[in-house]
Order: sequence, then structure tokens, then C-alpha cells
Amino acid sequence: MKNQLCMKELVAFCKRKGFIFLSSDIYGGLNGFFDYGPLGVELKRNIKAVWWKNMVHDREDMVGLDSSIILHPNVWKASGHVDGFSDPMVDCKVSKMRYRADQVFYSPVAISGEVIGYICVVDSEDKDAEVEKKVKALLKAQQKTNAIIDPLQLKPITKASVEEYALIPSPATDKPGDLTPPRNFNLMFQTQVGAVASESSVAYLRPETAQGIFIHFKNVLDSTRVKVPFGIAQIGKAFRNEITPRNFIFRSREFEQMEIEYFIPADENAWPEMHEKWIRTRFNWHCSIGIKKEWLSLDVHENKDLAHYAKACTDIMFKYPFGVQELEGIAVRGNFDLTQHQHASGKSLEYFDEERKTKYLPYVIEPSVGVDRTLLALLISAYDEDGINGEKRTVMRFKPSIAPIKMAVFPLVKNKPEIVEKARQLFKRLKSHWYAVYDEAGAIGRRYRRMDEMGTPWCITVDFDSLDNHTYTLRDRDTTEQKRMTEEELIAFFELQLN
Amino acid sequence: MKNQLCMKELVAFCKRKGFIFLSSDIYGGLNGFFDYGPLGVELKRNIKAVWWKNMVHDREDMVGLDSSIILHPNVWKASGHVDGFSDPMVDCKVSKMRYRADQVFYSPVAISGEVIGYICVVDSEDKDAEVEKKVKALLKAQQKTNAIIDPLQLKPITKASVEEYALIPSPATDKPGDLTPPRNFNLMFQTQVGAVASESSVAYLRPETAQGIFIHFKNVLDSTRVKVPFGIAQIGKAFRNEITPRNFIFRSREFEQMEIEYFIPADENAWPEMHEKWIRTRFNWHCSIGIKKEWLSLDVHENKDLAHYAKACTDIMFKYPFGVQELEGIAVRGNFDLTQHQHASGKSLEYFDEERKTKYLPYVIEPSVGVDRTLLALLISAYDEDGINGEKRTVMRFKPSIAPIKMAVFPLVKNKPEIVEKARQLFKRLKSHWYAVYDEAGAIGRRYRRMDEMGTPWCITVDFDSLDNHTYTLRDRDTTEQKRMTEEELIAFFELQLN
Repeated sequence: MKNQLCMKELVAFCKRKGFIFLSSDIYGGLNGFFDYGPLGVELKRNIKAVWWKNMVHDREDMVGLDSSIILHPNVWKASGHVDGFSDPMVDCKVSKMRYRADQVFYSPVAISGEVIGYICVVDSEDKDAEVEKKVKALLKAQQKTNAIIDPLQLKPITKASVEEYALIPSPATDKPGDLTPPRNFNLMFQTQVGAVASESSVAYLRPETAQGIFIHFKNVLDSTRVKVPFGIAQIGKAFRNEITPRNFIFRSREFEQMEIEYFIPADENAWPEMHEKWIRTRFNWHCSIGIKKEWLSLDVHENKDLAHYAKACTDIMFKYPFGVQELEGIAVRGNFDLTQHQHASGKSLEYFDEERKTKYLPYVIEPSVGVDRTLLALLISAYDEDGINGEKRTVMRFKPSIAPIKMAVFPLVKNKPEIVEKARQLFKRLKSHWYAVYDEAGAIGRRYRRMDEMGTPWCITVDFDSLDNHTYTLRDRDTTEQKRMTEEELIAFFELQLN
Repeated sequence: MKNQLCMKELVAFCKRKGFIFLSSDIYGGLNGFFDYGPLGVELKRNIKAVWWKNMVHDREDMVGLDSSIILHPNVWKASGHVDGFSDPMVDCKVSKMRYRADQVFYSPVAISGEVIGYICVVDSEDKDAEVEKKVKALLKAQQKTNAIIDPLQLKPITKASVEEYALIPSPATDKPGDLTPPRNFNLMFQTQVGAVASESSVAYLRPETAQGIFIHFKNVLDSTRVKVPFGIAQIGKAFRNEITPRNFIFRSREFEQMEIEYFIPADENAWPEMHEKWIRTRFNWHCSIGIKKEWLSLDVHENKDLAHYAKACTDIMFKYPFGVQELEGIAVRGNFDLTQHQHASGKSLEYFDEERKTKYLPYVIEPSVGVDRTLLALLISAYDEDGINGEKRTVMRFKPSIAPIKMAVFPLVKNKPEIVEKARQLFKRLKSHWYAVYDEAGAIGRRYRRMDEMGTPWCITVDFDSLDNHTYTLRDRDTTEQKRMTEEELIAFFELQLN
């Protein structure tokens, strides 16, 4: 089995097979935006459908919602996003480059304890080479080319003292004093609603789907028969104007979220157990769709790292090629959001608990996962290379429930009308139940390889024997084993595997 | 059977049952934005799933795509949207009101052929009353209260001559000269991408999903095995900053489209037949999901009304309570878009036709339908009232494939553990296959009514007899007829109806 492939290989593979394209690539692309091709859109649809089935339909304590991307601007004032949803950034006054401050690293360069200058680099895969280059240039400028320097201590420039800051060069110009002090940049995309461009018509593209749930908490209570504890689930696009989007679809500017707000009694004793349960539920879900368990881990946030309104937070982490990073966050948010919206709107959002005979604003547990991050973890988990008859094979080992295409039907040859007709009949029957494709182009081995790369779990070949005994060859993607089955056996097999 | 209900009733019904909420309603709402509640989101999901199955999976000549909402700004320059996607609007300089010019109507008021003044009103349901009021006021001001006026000739102010325009009063102030001349207002929402607010970082929210398809035409050719004729399908949000959004979810500022670009040979003889075929396919599809055929019609655009790049266009119209309006447009666009993008990007988008041994930019047929408009037509088609045992009943007659919830399981009473247990067992089995709900609250008749209003096709009741003979009552929503069935009979029945 192959180790994880590198991102460059994955990006090229995704484009070649039609999983993911760079957005607007005929116009040179748009940084931080990606489009899903014919296979990618099926994969994405399947992830969302399985999540909705498992999280909404299979449960009795969940309902769905689909709110707008553009909400009333007061929603984002109340939630704190207008004032606080920002990253620190710095500008280079000379080059006009802009950086996320926590991604710019600096270090003093010293010889035997004496600081001879500073270097400054932007975080990237080539960071180490960049550091080496800048140290060399500094030594050369100071005519100390052969000196041995003390160990470097790279730190983000947000940690620099004021005196130090003045001495740190811009990573673009290598001249001290060219960087502005860090200041906050709001990550929400802004637009104008209505025909008049005035202050009152400013609106934002939602940076998360969650607030759309909180503002309809009362509407859901009034229109359904839910009782605490219950959850509201939503899938939808969200937008963040990241200063430096990177790592392919991991951190893009337009992405899709699957979020749950699970409302529970406002009771300090109740949430820890429910939080644990959600962490287990969501961890197991990722395994169930085919994300490799050995690459998953949990990151329990320490109290000091929590947002002021959060009581606890555990992230489900995945080992991406660029490092172990967050796949899903499961936070306990108390009743901060409902409190804020109740206050700002002047509308009561309280829940009357019939069992406890008391009114309260429920606490909430928020399992929030990115569709794109899940899809990326799935691609990485599914990608494999092996050898068949001494030939290298690329195979996407998707679970059948997640695979873009479920099965392919091949006539062994395309110039025998009886075989073609039989294959077409079988194909039509299968297609009426599941997403199947028909392929008659090229040698059978090449057709298998094509389907392996697309992650199609099964291929069915109609051959000369099929004309006599009405059986077909079912070939398994993962084992490459072949079995002969009748049409009815095939249907029964697929029903068991797919329904 | 009841006639179409009025929009006011429908809006109230949708909120009460959790189909559709006013977006951000605790903050007073945001004009032109709507959110889907627990039932609405299921209905919307089902519409999209059936469209995707029928238009992509059931066919062999279609693939899917999912492009970004924010595309490179050059896409919209090339497509003509930056320069031309606008509506004419007029401002009232005094009241600061803004109107869509084609929705502002005026008429001279004359007595025996002599014009004594002009009236001006905004198009609305109350237009006639408004006209009458304004005529009265004019006559009073001219001290001709009892005069008989010549017939009025209401026309949009875009048709007024320059001399006339100066005499037309503002609909807000009733004073001539207060309206500005009509000018164009671009309907695309604008935002800034990237941390620097400069000209180069201006971007737009897509006003249609179609362009995301055209710019990936070559990527789809290169990553799949499609051959002309073939189509690319996409479902996704689009945004238009309508000057006057109205008619509930019919004309909103944020909406969802289901679009197909179907590429065909660039051949003047080929498109009419294929266009006809698509019109039939799409018309039948609307009927198949439960939109009332008697409220559907076709509107064939005359040549003089076509956009300069269009060869033909036929709209599928639906009789909404506010009038017969477009549900879906099926246009033949020639190869205008591919030509524009090829020119603007400098990248060849030509297709090599192996059969014809020639290269060309294909023509395209574009069946484009709004999810929200389809959902509205479905709600209107499904809504019905009848009488049962002398009591009025509201029932949503959704087709089972479209119904938000497929079935409900009731224990006849909730205080008999054997009945409850049996009902729970049956419920769990059904729920593993289909979206089912369990309800034990209230009299059985009330539970039926609740499900009728939600459009749930079947209710299954577990009663005392079920304990003895293991049969259950299956009650049909539309006929209200009840049949007794065993568990296996139920499963077989639902499999036939739903799979």
C-alpha cells in the first residue's frame, strides 16, 4: 500500500479525472476558489446525502433547515462577527504585499550572542530553504560569509516586542521598517443589498451557517413538535475572505459546511456527557464513510484556549499531507448566541421545558464540519497504488455508499450485436436503481483501470458465455477478483451492498 | 376541490407548518430573502434529488458540475453581464424612493380631449385603486371634481416622450419633475476578494450558474469521455440585486437554479428538433413531480423578443396566484458564450467532432429552472381543502417521491406498552429505508390531520388487533381509506411506491 501522496500529485490527479478544477482556470484562476467536476460533484453529493441521512433522517431528535447566505446585517452584529471575526495582517509599505501576521516568522541572527540583524519569512512548504537563503544574504551583506551563527529562534511577528519590530525586515524587500504594525482585517465578504448604496444596506456573506439556525430557533419550536434535547441541521455554502488561502480545498474562500446546533438543557451537569456522545458519534461517522481511522485523532482544547463563550471544544483532526489539521470542531457554546440574538432583536427566544417546568435559553453543542475538508480527507484515504500483473495501478478505494459511480457495464466486444444488446439491457436495469455507466471503448483491462481510478466499486462484463448461460462477470475493484453471477444474483448482491 | 389559494394564505401556511420563513425575521426580515424550515428543506432536497436523478443519472449524455458562486470577474465581462445585466430604474429626488422603471406606469388625464395633467402609479395588486385615487385628487386640485374624464391609457414611463416625461409626477410626491430620467442599474451583487480593496479585486456573486459551466467546457471534455451531443448540469445558488423583489419566493434576491447546458453540433438544421425534444422533456418532468398540468403552458418567444445571441426560446409558464409567470426557460443560445470566453481567455474551447471530422464551437440548448419557483408551483399544486365527516381538512397532495416525510407510525394509545413497543419496532424498520416519523400525541384523528397538512402520504396505526393478528392500518392521505396489512405487505407496498 502506498503512503499518502503529496498535494501536488493529488491536485493534478483531481484535475485529470474531473474531481476538482481550479475555479475560472481559463482566466488564470481565482485564488482560494475551486470547482467540482463531474466526479467531484457526485462525491460531494454523496457525502452530503449520507450526512443528512445519518444526522437527520436516521435520528428522531433532529430537523433540518436551509437559511440564506445573505442574512440581515444585525445578525452578524449580535453574533460578534462584525466586531471580532478578523485575522491580524501586516502590509509591506513598499511592495504592497499583504500577509496574515501569524504566518510571518522572524528570528534574530546572532554570532556568539551578538545580534547582527534579523531575517523574516512567510510560512510555506519552502520556509526552511527561504530561511537559509536569507541568512546567507545577511551574512554576505555584513561580510561575514563564513561565520557560524547561533541557532535561530523563529517566532511569529505578532510575538515581537516594539523595539524588535522596528528591526525586522519585510519578507518581500528584506528592509527593516517596511512592514506596518499588525492590524485586524475582517474576514467577512461585504456587499450591498438593495438599489441604494447607503450604510443601512451593507450586508455580509455568511462566514458560517450556524447563525441562520439560531435566528430561527423560535420558528422551529413553533412549527414542529421538537423538545429539548433536539438539534437543527444545515448544509450550505459559507465564505471567508482569507488573507492567505492555501492547501487546496482545505482553506478556501468559498466552502460548504455541515453544521448541527444541538440544543440541551441549560444545566452545567448535563453537557459533558452529551458532548462526549457527540464526539463519539461524529468520530465514528468519519470512519464509517471511509476516512482512515489511523489518520484521525482528537484535539481537546485546553480551557485557556477556548473562546469566552465556549465551555469546551474538541476537534476531530486528520493527518493531511500538509500536517495534522482540523476536520471537524465539536464545541459546547453555552447559550451565548441565543442570548445575544434575544437581546439584539428584543424577541424572546426562551424555551419552556415541560418536564422541568421552567423557562430557559438552552445550551448548545455544535458539531461543525466542512464538506470540502471531508472530501479532501476521503480522497487522501481512498487513494492507493498497487501492482497488477507487474503493472502499476492507481485505485480510489471509496466505500460503495460514497463512490461517485456505483458500477460499470462492459460488453466484452463492441462488434457483436448480441453481446452489445445483452449488455445494454443489463445496464438499463441496473441504471434504473443505481448510478451506473456503460463503456465499450478499448481493451477490457483498460476499461477496468479507468473505473479503478474513478473509484467505481464494481464492473460487470457481458461476454460470449453470457449469451449461452446468462451469467456475467462481476469484478471487484479492491481485490480484482471476478465471479460469475446471474442477473438476479447481481441485483440481490447490489441491493445488499447499496441499499 | 379548492381553487388556488391566495398568496397571503400561502405565506402564513408556510410559516406555520415550517415550510418557509421570512429570512432574519426576528430582525424584521430582509427584503427579497427567504429561509426554508424543517419541511421546506426536505421538499427542496427532494426536488433537487429528483431533477438530478432524472436529468443526470437516468441519462447517458449528461454529467454534473459544481462551480463557485464567486468566479473570476473576467467571466462576467466576457459574458456581457458587467455591461448589460441591468434593469432601468428611476429615483424620486424628493422622497428618495427608487423604482424599477418598467414597473412605474403613467397616463395623461384628459377631459374631452384636453389634457389637464398626468397621474403616475407603481405596479402592484392595488394599482387600480391607486389610479382612481390619483385621478380624484387631480380633478379636485383642478376644481373639476364632477367632470367626466376620457379613458386612461396607462403605459410604463420608459415609453414616455421627453416632453411628456417632464410633466409626469413622481408616484411618491405627485409633483411633476421629481423623477430622475431612467438609468441602468446592474443587478449583480458586488464584493471584494482578497485583503486589498482595489479595482482588480472586485468580484461578483453569480447571477446565474450557467457561466460556471461554459468556462469548464474544456475541462469536462478533457476529464471525461463525453461526445457532442451531451450536457453539463448544475444546481446552485444565484443572486440578483432586484430593485423590487416580490411575490414571495418567486422573485427573490437569493435563489437556487437547476441549469443544463446541452451542447449540440453548430448546425442550423440540428437545433430545432433537439430544442423541441428538450421542451417536451422538461414539460413532462414538471407534470411528473406533481405540478398541475392544467396550470402549465408554453410561451414561445417571438424572434423580435429574443436576445441578440439567442436563436429561439420557449418558456414553461405556470399559473401562479399573481398571474401566469415563467417557471422554466429553454433557450437556444447558439455558441455565443463559448465564443466570448474563447476570445476573452485566449484559450481554445473548440470541440473536435470525430464523426464529422471537423472542429467547432458547439451550439447550446439551455433548460434553466428555479428551484424556488418549482417549489412554489408544487406548494400551490399540492394545496387542497376538502371535508371529512363534515370537518374542513387542509391537505398537501404531494407525490410520494416529493413529499417531505414519507410515512408516519402511530401507536393507537401511548399507555399500552405492548402497542408502543410494536409501533416502535415497526417504525425503526421503516425508518431504516425511508424518512418516517413517529407520533403518539393526541387523538388519532388529530394526528392524521397533522400529517395531511405536512403532505405525508401514509400513516400506519398499531392498535389492539395488531397484537393479535400482526396487521396494521395503512391510511392513505388522499382517499383517507384504510387497509390492514402485515409488516411484509407494508414493506412490499412502500418498495413499489417509493423505490
